[in-house]
Amino acid sequence: MKTTAHSPQGAISELIARRKAGFSLERDFYADEAIYRVDVERIWRRGWLFAGHTCEIPRPGDYFSLEVDTDPILLVRGDDDQVRGFHNVCRHRGSLICAEAAGQVSRLVCPYHQWTYDRSGALVACRGAVEGFDKTQFGLRRVHTREIEGLIYICLAEEPPSFGPAQDVLAALAKPQGFTRAKVAKTIDYEVRANWKLVWENNRECYHCNVNHPQYIRANFDHYNADDTSPRVQKEIEAAVRRGEQKWAEAGLAATHTQTGMTRFPDAENNVWFSANRTPLVEGYVSETMDGKQVAPLMGDYSEADVGTLRIRTLPNFWNHSSCDHGVSTRLLPAGPQLTRVRVTWLVHQEALEGKDYQLEKLLPFWQLTSEQDWEICERQQRGVNSSAYTPGPYSPFKEYNVDSFVRWYLKMVSREA
Amino acid sequence: MKTTAHSPQGAISELIARRKAGFSLERDFYADEAIYRVDVERIWRRGWLFAGHTCEIPRPGDYFSLEVDTDPILLVRGDDDQVRGFHNVCRHRGSLICAEAAGQVSRLVCPYHQWTYDRSGALVACRGAVEGFDKTQFGLRRVHTREIEGLIYICLAEEPPSFGPAQDVLAALAKPQGFTRAKVAKTIDYEVRANWKLVWENNRECYHCNVNHPQYIRANFDHYNADDTSPRVQKEIEAAVRRGEQKWAEAGLAATHTQTGMTRFPDAENNVWFSANRTPLVEGYVSETMDGKQVAPLMGDYSEADVGTLRIRTLPNFWNHSSCDHGVSTRLLPAGPQLTRVRVTWLVHQEALEGKDYQLEKLLPFWQLTSEQDWEICERQQRGVNSSAYTPGPYSPFKEYNVDSFVRWYLKMVSREA
Amino acid sequence: MKTTAHSPQGAISELIARRKAGFSLERDFYADEAIYRVDVERIWRRGWLFAGHTCEIPRPGDYFSLEVDTDPILLVRGDDDQVRGFHNVCRHRGSLICAEAAGQVSRLVCPYHQWTYDRSGALVACRGAVEGFDKTQFGLRRVHTREIEGLIYICLAEEPPSFGPAQDVLAALAKPQGFTRAKVAKTIDYEVRANWKLVWENNRECYHCNVNHPQYIRANFDHYNADDTSPRVQKEIEAAVRRGEQKWAEAGLAATHTQTGMTRFPDAENNVWFSANRTPLVEGYVSETMDGKQVAPLMGDYSEADVGTLRIRTLPNFWNHSSCDHGVSTRLLPAGPQLTRVRVTWLVHQEALEGKDYQLEKLLPFWQLTSEQDWEICERQQRGVNSSAYTPGPYSPFKEYNVDSFVRWYLKMVSREA
Repeated sequence: MKTTAHSPQGAISELIARRKAGFSLERDFYADEAIYRVDVERIWRRGWLFAGHTCEIPRPGDYFSLEVDTDPILLVRGDDDQVRGFHNVCRHRGSLICAEAAGQVSRLVCPYHQWTYDRSGALVACRGAVEGFDKTQFGLRRVHTREIEGLIYICLAEEPPSFGPAQDVLAALAKPQGFTRAKVAKTIDYEVRANWKLVWENNRECYHCNVNHPQYIRANFDHYNADDTSPRVQKEIEAAVRRGEQKWAEAGLAATHTQTGMTRFPDAENNVWFSANRTPLVEGYVSETMDGKQVAPLMGDYSEADVGTLRIRTLPNFWNHSSCDHGVSTRLLPAGPQLTRVRVTWLVHQEALEGKDYQLEKLLPFWQLTSEQDWEICERQQRGVNSSAYTPGPYSPFKEYNVDSFVRWYLKMVSREA
Repeated sequence: MKTTAHSPQGAISELIARRKAGFSLERDFYADEAIYRVDVERIWRRGWLFAGHTCEIPRPGDYFSLEVDTDPILLVRGDDDQVRGFHNVCRHRGSLICAEAAGQVSRLVCPYHQWTYDRSGALVACRGAVEGFDKTQFGLRRVHTREIEGLIYICLAEEPPSFGPAQDVLAALAKPQGFTRAKVAKTIDYEVRANWKLVWENNRECYHCNVNHPQYIRANFDHYNADDTSPRVQKEIEAAVRRGEQKWAEAGLAATHTQTGMTRFPDAENNVWFSANRTPLVEGYVSETMDGKQVAPLMGDYSEADVGTLRIRTLPNFWNHSSCDHGVSTRLLPAGPQLTRVRVTWLVHQEALEGKDYQLEKLLPFWQLTSEQDWEICERQQRGVNSSAYTPGPYSPFKEYNVDSFVRWYLKMVSREA
Repeated sequence: MKTTAHSPQGAISELIARRKAGFSLERDFYADEAIYRVDVERIWRRGWLFAGHTCEIPRPGDYFSLEVDTDPILLVRGDDDQVRGFHNVCRHRGSLICAEAAGQVSRLVCPYHQWTYDRSGALVACRGAVEGFDKTQFGLRRVHTREIEGLIYICLAEEPPSFGPAQDVLAALAKPQGFTRAKVAKTIDYEVRANWKLVWENNRECYHCNVNHPQYIRANFDHYNADDTSPRVQKEIEAAVRRGEQKWAEAGLAATHTQTGMTRFPDAENNVWFSANRTPLVEGYVSETMDGKQVAPLMGDYSEADVGTLRIRTLPNFWNHSSCDHGVSTRLLPAGPQLTRVRVTWLVHQEALEGKDYQLEKLLPFWQLTSEQDWEICERQQRGVNSSAYTPGPYSPFKEYNVDSFVRWYLKMVSREA
């Protein structure tokens, strides 16, 4: 940490202590290598991370890989149909086992010396071992995994934090969306040259939407806030809520966010790192698409298009917006103090056929545009924050309450014992 | 600092203390990250830096941007026709405001949340602020600016050093060149993989010119030195001086450097970081061009082509060679211990038309070649200096007196209190 | 060193002390910048390094250059026909003298200010020096050089370690190969994104050959080990040894490795960093080529194709496999904690003509494939070793005895006094 103290520990404590409430963080939090290492240790290697979707690995032996900072991880569906997470690192001499992003294996065979693990991670073959070598001590290192209605979570810590509360809250809302019966229509990977926290801060407010996301604001109400929800807008959202109420009740759904502005998340004080809600779209929109029209067959349990949008978010690395016909997952992975790898995944009903039931040129633009507009914003912000003249600025209490909540959550996480 | 002490402060003091007079600097000065940070703090964020030309932003609202290390800066012409400098960093959450290299704005609007500043940097609009928010406290951070006859200087320090002496010396010589009534004919940007000091040391001697700059030495006398100014050469420069004397006197100009070798600059002891002089060209040359012929209409106050060359240089980042018909500005910006961004700009009379009054293929080669030859030299030197076997070598007292002066100026600057 | 102590010295001692015998090294040894610096200081700047072949610079004035970490080195044949090594750094201001990979010079002239050195490195001309300047103090800095039958070695240390034992052992075996009368048929340069020790560990076992090097195992016996040398294989190698015995004895050659598995090297305890041996190829192979057939004229003293393979290796940066008709040299140079530059050079008889006496498409594939397969392995291993979940794993005593020997040799080298 160039500009502060000698030990990262001392430096970060000092920086945390002098944070001015309601203001953005100091530069080092977004730019400094030592603080990035603290983020990796205390947040990314401790909490629950979204990894991917169960539908990406439907059959035993299917796998996909990801990299959390420099930790390569493998998710594999076992013979018992369970999804397991492993460090993608051979116990022999540390080679990466699966170099591909995804694939199908009968056994996990290290390409270096063919140490062979079964789909549950147990070492089953290694030529040349010393006599009496105990294979049971050399299975692949596991990472904890959990599933919520088709969403796979991992935790790299030995003792993971509680998952139950997230499970309870998210499962109920996610279930009708049918992610367990979905398929991936498209994945786009991005390298965003910005600290992962800038990406989250961008996600936690719609103050920037008016000018930056023209397509987004045509479909949604959340860019309106306490200061600019006019009587006309108020009437419109009330009408949209009423419109949905009867239909949704019939379908067993409920609007859980029925006002303008974003639902409050996270809750730093109660360590709430997960949330979900269903909220109406504007009149004439049944899907988050460029013209609001449905672009793919209904997903999940829906029998009706007009179900608003379901939104799920879990810290530190996931959000999803889903409509009646498709869902879009965004996954962040940190790759350096000023580099975040982002994957955006479009999901549709598992039986939908591209070209017949849906067209990518109709499915993708809404969230591809919104995503890419945001990445550009984040990269521009990073360049400004890197300035020696940057000083923390004030959040709007009407529009950036969630950014402040995110910052408070973040500071609480990194203040924990090492 | 790998090879010396633990604190950059201690290390640099030790390195300064053991510098052998008349010898080049030790490797760390050219290669080490910690010393580079000291250079940025004590030189680049304290002194006057050349930013650009007034003619680049002729109308109110015109701006251009630059980056000093990681500090993005904006130069804007205001409604009152004054040029102002700002940190290109929004006071809200630190986003870069203008991402383009240059443009025209009626107001400076941050693309993130549309915080809006007028052309004088005052915050005039920000939606969503808390009640009682005092906009006057959130104007853009200013950087000091000065103009000398069309050259714009900035200073990032709160308390800039005196500018008056530079103003006095440079204005008188620069005035007849007419940079205030010029236009940019061409700009070329370079990334030179060398420490900024190597670039300056290269600039401060013409010892290397004989072999490296064949076109340059055909036009000039400064590569001759005390040891190789033959009687023939001495006669030539005397003739050139006499040739100019009468004409120049009529035009109110004066040759201020009338001998071979380079004029002495900088003056470390008296902290002279600026200098200018007019000197004759060789017989047959009226412009620094490949064949010595005029390649564009006369600039400024000149009514006669044979005015020699005007040369201006200011530390740490500017030099300019101007002839009767064009001027060439070189601007350095540091971007890392071994990376310097260089911009070379060709200026001609504001009314000159490309293709009609001048051709780029005639205008550019002399200084494009000279520049690119030098960048290659600097990059080759950086590679050698990086060697663990490199040790400082002796400067020639006849040919490298200015390199030694530069090094002494540099050491004085970085020895100042932090 | 991020994860351990504050001084690299303390950190490496701690890491060395806790190394578990028979296990691979901890992550920092392969990934950390501070340990890489220790490797450079204690191994690369102290020991004998393979530089290239005498046949690359047959005439006085021929030179080639290489870079050991950031130290540029020049090898030049002098007027007295001796090969000398120099730091490729001008004594004046540190410029690289020869920027090209290889060439021919009458004198070594620095391109910056034409300081001129003769082919023995003596400074013979420098314009502009102060009166009384003693040129003899400013010759090029020498690096020690030695030759073994056409192989050039350098040492960057002031006091090189003994070379005699290596000379004795290697010269006898290398002589009949005729490297002194060879020519370079092809050179390929690689940038391998792996620590140099991973490249060596890969080289020190053939445990990985079965699956990764199909072409290699068809020609050789060394991938068989104590645990998998079947009676059939044992018979084959015995037959191959017998086949060679008479012929070789006639030619004054001897098989010095006549069993399956790799010859033991290095010997950490006795600091044996060099070794060579001749070993038979499988029935039907007279050369390490795709089909085992001879692909170029016989080299050196051979009058018979069936001479097995000669193998030479010297730590930390060289190995060579040679057949009757060609030799292949591999040279490693460290360029960062996770970057190794590798050059593979194919040698044939000096009078062999490409297209007539040999075809590159026959000559190259065997070792080009084997090399590139290995680089991919090493890069995959580096990615896995970078994981925070990587922990040292056990070496096979049957198959990886030489990897363990290499690691012990390495630890001994870096444990030496600074």
